Amino acid sequence: MSKKIPRSNEDDYSAKIIAERQAFIEENTPARLKHTRQFSFEPADMSGNIENLFGVAQIPIGLAGPLLVNGEHAKGEFYVPMATVEGTMLASYNRGMKVIRESGGVTTTVSGEAMQRAPTFVFPSAREARDFCIWLKENYLQIKAVAETTTSVGKLNEIEQYHAHNMVFTRFDYSTGDAAGQNMTSRATFHACEWIVKQYPALSHYLLSGSFDTEKRTSSVNLLKGRGKRVTAEITIPRDVMINNLRISPPQMHYGQGISTLAALLTNSSNNAAHPANGLAALYLATGQDIANIGESNQCTTYNKVTREGDYYFSITLPAIIMATYGGGTALPTQRECLEIMDCFGKDKALKLAEIAAGLVLAGELSLGAATRVDKDTRKNEWVDAHERLGRNR
Amino acid sequence: MSKKIPRSNEDDYSAKIIAERQAFIEENTPARLKHTRQFSFEPADMSGNIENLFGVAQIPIGLAGPLLVNGEHAKGEFYVPMATVEGTMLASYNRGMKVIRESGGVTTTVSGEAMQRAPTFVFPSAREARDFCIWLKENYLQIKAVAETTTSVGKLNEIEQYHAHNMVFTRFDYSTGDAAGQNMTSRATFHACEWIVKQYPALSHYLLSGSFDTEKRTSSVNLLKGRGKRVTAEITIPRDVMINNLRISPPQMHYGQGISTLAALLTNSSNNAAHPANGLAALYLATGQDIANIGESNQCTTYNKVTREGDYYFSITLPAIIMATYGGGTALPTQRECLEIMDCFGKDKALKLAEIAAGLVLAGELSLGAATRVDKDTRKNEWVDAHERLGRNR
Amino acid sequence: MSKKIPRSNEDDYSAKIIAERQAFIEENTPARLKHTRQFSFEPADMSGNIENLFGVAQIPIGLAGPLLVNGEHAKGEFYVPMATVEGTMLASYNRGMKVIRESGGVTTTVSGEAMQRAPTFVFPSAREARDFCIWLKENYLQIKAVAETTTSVGKLNEIEQYHAHNMVFTRFDYSTGDAAGQNMTSRATFHACEWIVKQYPALSHYLLSGSFDTEKRTSSVNLLKGRGKRVTAEITIPRDVMINNLRISPPQMHYGQGISTLAALLTNSSNNAAHPANGLAALYLATGQDIANIGESNQCTTYNKVTREGDYYFSITLPAIIMATYGGGTALPTQRECLEIMDCFGKDKALKLAEIAAGLVLAGELSLGAATRVDKDTRKNEWVDAHERLGRNR
Amino acid sequence: MSKKIPRSNEDDYSAKIIAERQAFIEENTPARLKHTRQFSFEPADMSGNIENLFGVAQIPIGLAGPLLVNGEHAKGEFYVPMATVEGTMLASYNRGMKVIRESGGVTTTVSGEAMQRAPTFVFPSAREARDFCIWLKENYLQIKAVAETTTSVGKLNEIEQYHAHNMVFTRFDYSTGDAAGQNMTSRATFHACEWIVKQYPALSHYLLSGSFDTEKRTSSVNLLKGRGKRVTAEITIPRDVMINNLRISPPQMHYGQGISTLAALLTNSSNNAAHPANGLAALYLATGQDIANIGESNQCTTYNKVTREGDYYFSITLPAIIMATYGGGTALPTQRECLEIMDCFGKDKALKLAEIAAGLVLAGELSLGAATRVDKDTRKNEWVDAHERLGRNR
Repeated sequence: MSKKIPRSNEDDYSAKIIAERQAFIEENTPARLKHTRQFSFEPADMSGNIENLFGVAQIPIGLAGPLLVNGEHAKGEFYVPMATVEGTMLASYNRGMKVIRESGGVTTTVSGEAMQRAPTFVFPSAREARDFCIWLKENYLQIKAVAETTTSVGKLNEIEQYHAHNMVFTRFDYSTGDAAGQNMTSRATFHACEWIVKQYPALSHYLLSGSFDTEKRTSSVNLLKGRGKRVTAEITIPRDVMINNLRISPPQMHYGQGISTLAALLTNSSNNAAHPANGLAALYLATGQDIANIGESNQCTTYNKVTREGDYYFSITLPAIIMATYGGGTALPTQRECLEIMDCFGKDKALKLAEIAAGLVLAGELSLGAATRVDKDTRKNEWVDAHERLGRNR
Repeated sequence: MSKKIPRSNEDDYSAKIIAERQAFIEENTPARLKHTRQFSFEPADMSGNIENLFGVAQIPIGLAGPLLVNGEHAKGEFYVPMATVEGTMLASYNRGMKVIRESGGVTTTVSGEAMQRAPTFVFPSAREARDFCIWLKENYLQIKAVAETTTSVGKLNEIEQYHAHNMVFTRFDYSTGDAAGQNMTSRATFHACEWIVKQYPALSHYLLSGSFDTEKRTSSVNLLKGRGKRVTAEITIPRDVMINNLRISPPQMHYGQGISTLAALLTNSSNNAAHPANGLAALYLATGQDIANIGESNQCTTYNKVTREGDYYFSITLPAIIMATYGGGTALPTQRECLEIMDCFGKDKALKLAEIAAGLVLAGELSLGAATRVDKDTRKNEWVDAHERLGRNR
Repeated sequence: MSKKIPRSNEDDYSAKIIAERQAFIEENTPARLKHTRQFSFEPADMSGNIENLFGVAQIPIGLAGPLLVNGEHAKGEFYVPMATVEGTMLASYNRGMKVIRESGGVTTTVSGEAMQRAPTFVFPSAREARDFCIWLKENYLQIKAVAETTTSVGKLNEIEQYHAHNMVFTRFDYSTGDAAGQNMTSRATFHACEWIVKQYPALSHYLLSGSFDTEKRTSSVNLLKGRGKRVTAEITIPRDVMINNLRISPPQMHYGQGISTLAALLTNSSNNAAHPANGLAALYLATGQDIANIGESNQCTTYNKVTREGDYYFSITLPAIIMATYGGGTALPTQRECLEIMDCFGKDKALKLAEIAAGLVLAGELSLGAATRVDKDTRKNEWVDAHERLGRNR
Repeated sequence: MSKKIPRSNEDDYSAKIIAERQAFIEENTPARLKHTRQFSFEPADMSGNIENLFGVAQIPIGLAGPLLVNGEHAKGEFYVPMATVEGTMLASYNRGMKVIRESGGVTTTVSGEAMQRAPTFVFPSAREARDFCIWLKENYLQIKAVAETTTSVGKLNEIEQYHAHNMVFTRFDYSTGDAAGQNMTSRATFHACEWIVKQYPALSHYLLSGSFDTEKRTSSVNLLKGRGKRVTAEITIPRDVMINNLRISPPQMHYGQGISTLAALLTNSSNNAAHPANGLAALYLATGQDIANIGESNQCTTYNKVTREGDYYFSITLPAIIMATYGGGTALPTQRECLEIMDCFGKDKALKLAEIAAGLVLAGELSLGAATRVDKDTRKNEWVDAHERLGRNR
């Protein structure tokens, strides 16, 4: 007979109910909650972020940097808080940041911004579906106006259309300011769809979501059209800086990247990079982002060449960074403090944070990209060595 | 001029150095560290899990369940700790668990277990590469013995081989007990490769990693051959249970899943599911898993049908769950407590935890899969409504 | 010492040079050219279609049909010439056409039309690349005018833009009338690019093609945005018609399609269909299409459901059918005759031909989709049986 | 009212029935069959290759070469018959062959050989499916023996297993000698499956094909595991040879290939090559291969580097070349002659033909890869120019 978890209701964040839940756990499971119960905030502050709250996960945060960013929104040196339980990782990113500093900084560019909600419109036949595509284009401005009545921040910028079978798959693309915007766009799109239902009787029915938004997973449509922010980070590393710091020359690094990219093609990987998910996860976690978005944000391409001068040009493009500086988990106690370390809390900071994230990912790529080779003379492998030294508990 | 983060050395976890880092942050950034500095553990306990430690992220944890699992390793009811900052999510999984309980539980099966390290062997030409493939097969037992000298737990079970161009891409597949095993397999494979180098002079050189392991990203090779644990969760939901709890009938749910799957094909998504990354991320976070693995673990297929009796059969297969109950972040203070809630801490528990994770994912699929439809009569959408009610801060 | 193939020059289609080439072959290889030399046309008619002509491949053509099409361009019954050397295949398509006739015909809809040339524009950095995207949008009408000066038929309808790294990948989308249009679009796009070069000095250089056109291969960008014609064919097959002809019920067929689709997801296939390449290749070959386009035209999705009445709805969408009724190989002697069998030669027929092609593919899907099951009573498999009976030479 | 195509029965290849069909066409369609009826062979020779025969497609064949191959099976110079209606294409391949000759030939290596039939075994639940995997491995030798009783040529070499949900997806991998072997493997696998059905009562049912064989379409499973022959072609082109013939230097070519590969990743293309489908289709067509296999054989990876000496190393790997020199359409009149031009007709020639095919593809890649650039001085583009000169009819 299953015992019900105590909760007067989901909205209750009182000390009493939390204590009851803790007691319930200790009564019904082998766990003794010594550390999980030690949080420093008011439970009510968690309202809207969690249900059935009983405690807190404490994830250690380290400080990396400074990361020198030549962005349009992020300019100068930033210390980056990274929350992780994986030893060696922060040290590796830190090494990449040193290379960046000695190369004069990483240049970052945001080239796209869109949060989607993706209704599927279903018709009796393909012909009616195709005709709806035309209607949708013709009535775009009116639909935009209807959607935008539900939000003061969100702007509908495009309705992507993909016809197949008796359906029209759409993506409503919004800019959402400093919020991630998944809920804002749900509400606006639902409102727009209900308006469409009334205007277009030939429509059989629609599904509000679940298809072309490809949320929390990677996809070609996100890679091509973007989701959240599309950001590129670039750098040209002088040959000497590279050799001194990474013990690898530009042609060697270029050669290794060529093999990684071939492997990405052969394996059909979501990126041809080394480990963008590592840096992003650590930053998402520290700053109150929805960590499940790592499922989609790990999508990444890398591109590199040896310049005529013999230096190393390297760049990454992240097509689907989902990051906010407002709303969601950003105002939670430790999360806000970590955003403040980079002066990224609140309004008008989301593009700045996205640029820092791209610079961070590039730092990690440089460091790990150089570490997987085996030194010809010492027959040592840096990567194995570093984990032996710093990640001993495995 | 950039200021250096204080750290006598990376291995230093003394109170002094942590305080210096905190002071450094407050001096050099806008942040005031009130909450981040409040952790309940001994800093030295973090050794091997983080570098440049200065504080802690506090992530709220809620309790979901009970989840009724009919596994081979997990048997009975489990309360599941979920750490997240995304409101509504736990409530949604909780609803799915209710459906599972009323249907008699979710059946789980682990059908594969493998942690890879994936060296690439490079030759002067394709012909020598192909010949190496034959040699590798013939010398498998010896290579296995060499690799296994470095670990008491890891067992090398297969060397996958893929030939292309002048290279042989391999995957060394290990079972790693209750540890995730990424480091254990690096060490063992490095040792084996160095042995191979000595035996096989025609080899030009090798790269220890960075290609076919496809770590922290999705890939077809992981989908086909698996990584970490391959787990399936299945359920048959009686028609009435479905309608009463999810307000959707088996044929309607089947129809919606058909459209989602078509969309997954059209968009080339990493899964045809609703949101496996959500549940996995919350569980990974609570239990000290490497959260960046969400980049690869979100890979998932769903399959469903209406049975002859009119009930709903639904199943998910997760080909690449990376979860440990030993080593890594599992022994950290709050993380261990969360594992203990499910009696999943320590040796001989990894398969049990993987089964619970698969059941959890299935719960979330049922709930969200049913929520994206618009009710014909009320013109309401549950999903939008739930976020309005529980995720108000967005 | 290699002997040079006789050819005064590539443009020479005289009987003399052809005879010399034939003699050269018989002198220098084991072949005796008895059949290859027997063609019924004037060699000069091949000018523009082949170089170094020495003979002809004779591919047998069979007649399938009639195929009953309820299209917007193809209306009524069509006999379809299929050129192939694969026994059983035409018979299988023929069976599907019978099902279509008994179900009242296949409904076809063209929902897109676009032939691309895809220049890549390269810049010193991502920021300049991103700015070029804006310029490109602002100057679209002028670029369109420049491109269209080179062609009386082609119309530039869209310039797709995809930014990554320091590059802008574009697709210039044209409608090309009844020609396939690959050359027309090359010329127009080259002209437009050279104009752009003069207007936009920040451009480092560009590549005219070789990237996002994804010609003669499958791709997600073609699946999403289309190439050539995007056509859907649909049918609702009465339950009895299905059982009588295909010995399978609608729920059984639906079940089998579900497994095929799951397999397509697991294997990352270019389609979740049975064999669209078969019918398309036979039709392309008979009617003078560029047969190498099968590399891209095999991309296809299928969708199906059992209707409330218990009948079977089935549809296919082909996103990238490359077919012409004018230019290319369409005016060659046998090819033109085959087009005329369907009254599809010349101007204003391309959409009609595309609709017939889609109907043909659907016919083949029905037939083979039903044939892979094993009969429970007889323990026979139709597909193996049919090949035993009709494809005996294997 | 539809008129039935005359055919006493499908097996009838008499002159009488063919004449009736021709008369039927001329009566019921606008076509006048002047050329289509002119074939030089005995209709009965087509038995097993076509149904409802009424005529012949005449496809012009040109001769390219010689192609200098340093293979294990193909050694020396080969003249390659290419059947196509696409002007310029043969000339482009011919140019590539000149580069190959001046570089000392193309080296080819066959590294895999497998024709699959891919039954799916369905069980009540995942647990029974997983257990079947173990049984299948344990009974492999017996299953192999059963399958091989049906064929004197085919050998079962492996049963690949992929578990998901309540199913086991398998691939039965055979070597099939000089035949393509699709039918041979169907028969053998059907026989084996029926044996399994009797041995394993827990099996619910199975589908003989339609899932993991991914026939006539591209897939990751084919790319990884191969289908038909897996062949690599390699070359090192001296810098001067490259510049003189292709007007491009090794670093420029390497640079262009890098962009193409990036584009292949971004678009999720079935290859990162220029146009393997072109050469393969022309060769398949001339030599009696199943042309629909271009749907799968276009899968290809390219890899290249500039050597330390400044020369250009280039290679292609084709994972799924489906080619036969025996059976199928290979003995048809013109098809056989074309095989004989390369001394590739009959037994023990299939690997030789596969090597020539790979060399041919490499020739085409070199030529087109160099042609898409725009000359800085003349502002001309070779590719557009060549089509203007040789492909005028478009």
